[in-house]
Amino acid sequence: MNQYCISRKLFERAARVIPCGIYGHTSPVFTVPGRFPYYAVAARGCRYQDPDGNWYLDFLCGYGAVLLGYGYPQVEEAAARQREKGNCMNHPAPIMVELAEKLLEVTRFGSWVVFAKNGSDVTTWAIAVARLTTGRRKVLKVAGAYHGVGAWCNPTGYGFLPEERSHVHDFRWNDLDSFRKLVEEYHGDVAAVVLCPFHHPSYGRCILPDPGFFPTVRKICRREGIVLVLDDIRAGFRLHRGGSHQWLGIEPDILCLGKALGNGYPISVAIGREELRVAASRVFLTGTYWNNAVAMAAALEMLKILEQEPVVEHVQEVGRRFCQGLRELAWRYGFDLQCSGPPSMPFATFSGDDSFFLQQEFCARVAAQGVFLHPHHNWFMSYAHRDLDIAEAFDKIEIALRQLREGLVKR
Amino acid sequence: MNQYCISRKLFERAARVIPCGIYGHTSPVFTVPGRFPYYAVAARGCRYQDPDGNWYLDFLCGYGAVLLGYGYPQVEEAAARQREKGNCMNHPAPIMVELAEKLLEVTRFGSWVVFAKNGSDVTTWAIAVARLTTGRRKVLKVAGAYHGVGAWCNPTGYGFLPEERSHVHDFRWNDLDSFRKLVEEYHGDVAAVVLCPFHHPSYGRCILPDPGFFPTVRKICRREGIVLVLDDIRAGFRLHRGGSHQWLGIEPDILCLGKALGNGYPISVAIGREELRVAASRVFLTGTYWNNAVAMAAALEMLKILEQEPVVEHVQEVGRRFCQGLRELAWRYGFDLQCSGPPSMPFATFSGDDSFFLQQEFCARVAAQGVFLHPHHNWFMSYAHRDLDIAEAFDKIEIALRQLREGLVKR
Repeated sequence: MNQYCISRKLFERAARVIPCGIYGHTSPVFTVPGRFPYYAVAARGCRYQDPDGNWYLDFLCGYGAVLLGYGYPQVEEAAARQREKGNCMNHPAPIMVELAEKLLEVTRFGSWVVFAKNGSDVTTWAIAVARLTTGRRKVLKVAGAYHGVGAWCNPTGYGFLPEERSHVHDFRWNDLDSFRKLVEEYHGDVAAVVLCPFHHPSYGRCILPDPGFFPTVRKICRREGIVLVLDDIRAGFRLHRGGSHQWLGIEPDILCLGKALGNGYPISVAIGREELRVAASRVFLTGTYWNNAVAMAAALEMLKILEQEPVVEHVQEVGRRFCQGLRELAWRYGFDLQCSGPPSMPFATFSGDDSFFLQQEFCARVAAQGVFLHPHHNWFMSYAHRDLDIAEAFDKIEIALRQLREGLVKR
Repeated sequence: MNQYCISRKLFERAARVIPCGIYGHTSPVFTVPGRFPYYAVAARGCRYQDPDGNWYLDFLCGYGAVLLGYGYPQVEEAAARQREKGNCMNHPAPIMVELAEKLLEVTRFGSWVVFAKNGSDVTTWAIAVARLTTGRRKVLKVAGAYHGVGAWCNPTGYGFLPEERSHVHDFRWNDLDSFRKLVEEYHGDVAAVVLCPFHHPSYGRCILPDPGFFPTVRKICRREGIVLVLDDIRAGFRLHRGGSHQWLGIEPDILCLGKALGNGYPISVAIGREELRVAASRVFLTGTYWNNAVAMAAALEMLKILEQEPVVEHVQEVGRRFCQGLRELAWRYGFDLQCSGPPSMPFATFSGDDSFFLQQEFCARVAAQGVFLHPHHNWFMSYAHRDLDIAEAFDKIEIALRQLREGLVKR
């Protein structure tokens, strides 16, 4: 059974020099403190190693950033070729143009692309473009949806002024009435609606869009002149190889992509429709490293691989089998495990486990066996997850389930 | 004389798929459109190549991000060693702790460090930390100073609401009266003052701080409980190897670093005093790639090199000689060229050239000879700039000066 001694010692050292030791989405308080690794020293394919020497079969993939597997050779080679030439320079590299063209080709709806580093960079910028285009103030988003750390959407709000968030309003996922109500209430003043392709709140089940949800939102936005921003940063390239709007069957006005796009290399993009080009040209955006050519080379290679290999089909299929097997396995030990979300980025919860006790105990015991399943955040499948990996994961998960059952019986 | 045919053709292609073709600080409109290269294909040491095959002796260094020279072997090797292990993973790598400890050691004032990607990430977050700590709203900054693209400071403001910027107020550089006036006007409501170590406005001469400026601001901030944020992103590691506050002789409350820290690898940090730790723990900050270990390995190696080698001394000395030689050379052709700013990141302007005509013509002609001097943004020296490079630059600059003189005579 895995121990986390070195992880914990490192964390104690870190707690002296870094607020909370580790902050943000990788904070230990987001899993179960003390029962998961805190650091990673190496990663390859669908596995990583912690400082205590434990290896994990990984179902988080760098919180979705890694779609092909850690250190995917073809991407690493493309990045290396560009690195040999140059990365952070006074001007963009020509590959920026090629990548923009390729992105427009595969996403099939927009006429321009901008590049940044963080997901937050492009969601925040997209809002500004919508406001400048429409001359309106209001931004509508779904309660509990995550769009980054910008002042307008920072999830805790600590440190931000009411003024900075005063024109952002929440409606409920899949609830067209609550959406319509806001559109009516702020009629003529709604600049944008921001949506993820499906709802994946932390500490909650994933919820797919109802069949009528996106088409109706799209129709209302078109009628009211509201800019529809699809925040596809988390889901992008795991639902469709050309962006999740094609999985949804709608056209957004702005599409935000990141994470999987660079297979771990830092890059985010916004893609938009011609009508927004003037505003997109005027809302100032820049960052020292935004032209870095290595991340662009990695992203371009990623898109080429998606054309050549059945990556999306694979992550969907392997996720389907993983969810099904997991459910059957849990059932065998008397647990009703429910999978939610698309199979390529699923989440599993126990029925009736409102306190998350079972979930946390299950995931912690699974981690101790060398399989990483996040207890509070949706999981991610990768192209590196193969049959043997899934079989091995099931063997280890079964041990955890047996322990969990025995532990409950003893209590 | 350099031609930019391929650059321009690429740009035409780009203009179809990217708003303005190239946006942000590398936009061609920030130099002189048509008379500078638009793209870079390769870079080594203090030189880079454009798509037309022209090589440039570079005095911009990736807008300051490159301090040791492009592709500095020791940094590239450290980055490669970490990349071989892992980069973007589910947890930080142990190197994060080591880097935080090293940063605190060399900057010698703070007790914690956070990591991000963009300069904007940390300046914007620092403001929120100051607001949460103080429970106040106002942020004071210098008119014309650049602190990133956040809603609160985005230089054009296009796309942002008055509400998002309503508690940000400008005073004038080196003007203590205008600073005191704001502190009095908003007495008890000033959360932070944000300052760069020297004033480097675009399209303007650099202005060093008056001797009393920083000490007085520091004293007033301490007395009034205002958080002093030093935005050292642009100047960091070119004025002092442990952060520009040590060059200024003051202690900030939060120090923001980026650019040179990673020698081109994307990383930014905020370092702060113990009193701000609680707020720093509460203002949520995160990004998919913020734990990326490769940029941290590059930054740690950078800091080690700064301890081992006289990098800061070198960039200051070579900058001094460059400015002096440039001034003498210009004088020989009848131009009164004035250098401003610290010698390691100088800027030169022509006396009486208020329209920037001479400046633009000079820099464009210099570019045509294969030396990159930005006409509207301060320049940067690197550790790769050696005597022979400077001598070669002077030979080429002299040709440009002669042409400029002859062109003026003919007019």
